[in-house]
Amino acid sequence: MSETPRAETFVFLDLEATGLPSMDPEIAELSLFAVHRSSLENLERDESGAPVLPRVLDKLTLCMCPERPFTAKASEITGLSSEGLARCRKAGFDGAVVRMLQAFLSRQAGPICLVAHNGFDYDFPLLCAELRRLGARLPRDTVCLDTLPALRGLDRAHSHGTRARGRQGYSLGSLFHRYFQAEPSAAHSAEGDVHTLLLIFLHRAAELLAWADEQARRWAHIEPMYLPPDDPSLES
Amino acid sequence: MSETPRAETFVFLDLEATGLPSMDPEIAELSLFAVHRSSLENLERDESGAPVLPRVLDKLTLCMCPERPFTAKASEITGLSSEGLARCRKAGFDGAVVRMLQAFLSRQAGPICLVAHNGFDYDFPLLCAELRRLGARLPRDTVCLDTLPALRGLDRAHSHGTRARGRQGYSLGSLFHRYFQAEPSAAHSAEGDVHTLLLIFLHRAAELLAWADEQARRWAHIEPMYLPPDDPSLES
Repeated sequence: MSETPRAETFVFLDLEATGLPSMDPEIAELSLFAVHRSSLENLERDESGAPVLPRVLDKLTLCMCPERPFTAKASEITGLSSEGLARCRKAGFDGAVVRMLQAFLSRQAGPICLVAHNGFDYDFPLLCAELRRLGARLPRDTVCLDTLPALRGLDRAHSHGTRARGRQGYSLGSLFHRYFQAEPSAAHSAEGDVHTLLLIFLHRAAELLAWADEQARRWAHIEPMYLPPDDPSLES
Repeated sequence: MSETPRAETFVFLDLEATGLPSMDPEIAELSLFAVHRSSLENLERDESGAPVLPRVLDKLTLCMCPERPFTAKASEITGLSSEGLARCRKAGFDGAVVRMLQAFLSRQAGPICLVAHNGFDYDFPLLCAELRRLGARLPRDTVCLDTLPALRGLDRAHSHGTRARGRQGYSLGSLFHRYFQAEPSAAHSAEGDVHTLLLIFLHRAAELLAWADEQARRWAHIEPMYLPPDDPSLES
């Protein structure tokens, strides 16, 4: 018997941040697309038969100015910089972000499954760290799905022990190219990457929904990427 | 001396609703794009010289299930229906929407100028009616700009009394076609229309910023499209 709550709404997310996990990055941009399960089970398609984005789709994209600087590489990849964000007078990841995130999720039928590509190693622990710093929580029955191991796992299951698929790339760009023979648009903006992720998910929606129902992890089991400097649990 | 506060952030918005003003419509979809003034004064451009969307852009798009039905026409135009929204378990325009809207605006440097096409006759009074029903307010120094009379006014000023421009269309689609020789994408989804509106604004950003500084109206002066049935001010 599975312990995973069956998700009613899938919230696709991507974060852009100041750098890689080793430097305790801060979130600089966050994007969420919320799609109800019924839209994933009954896909709308264009004339060519390719799935199109569901008509009923809630979306939240926010930029925020981190306290610490971007690495040169992160700034180059994302197109974001502390100067650019400060010029637009953006605040950091603060209480207003948390209130919006919580209100956004409260508008979605639960349980919610957060979906991110490479989420277990990057987006989920990083979001967890930022939320913990502010003492904020997500709904208790929230689960999460990482499409990177999910798609690798599905392909392994299909290949029945052959290694043919093992060498394929599983970056968002590689997957998009493999599925749609095109380049994804707006790569490395949070919203652009969520858009790409959602199209990839729609391409294999039935398999990924089944995977999520069995293998999504509880959000409560995600460990923060790092503990904030003034985390009370660090005090003796 | 102008009484209009000079806006720091421009929040482009569009509403999809259950029908025309005469039937006291309810909002079914809302989309907001927030752009700081500095991004409008220093446009990013593509290789052809055409303005592109600013990199730092906050976005909120929400669908909501109205209590009363859509007119057939509104449902056809927007692609939304009570059944589709209910299937996705969407709530109505409620406290969570207000909290999100207020938190979204609180992330933007003020004063804020709301921008909508035909806003004075449709989007602003309708939003005002929905907010009043919930007893909610926007920041006191909020102003608003309707790009429909603004672009008509700018063209009249340019034409120096000739009537050449008087016969041109000023719908979003007509303006987009005139400026970009292309069809706008995703017309009559709230987000699609805000995207089109923002591109139109960027095409004439300097003139529209100057117009807003002089002629934007105070949000406090917007009258609601209708009063809710149980509005306390209606009670004797």
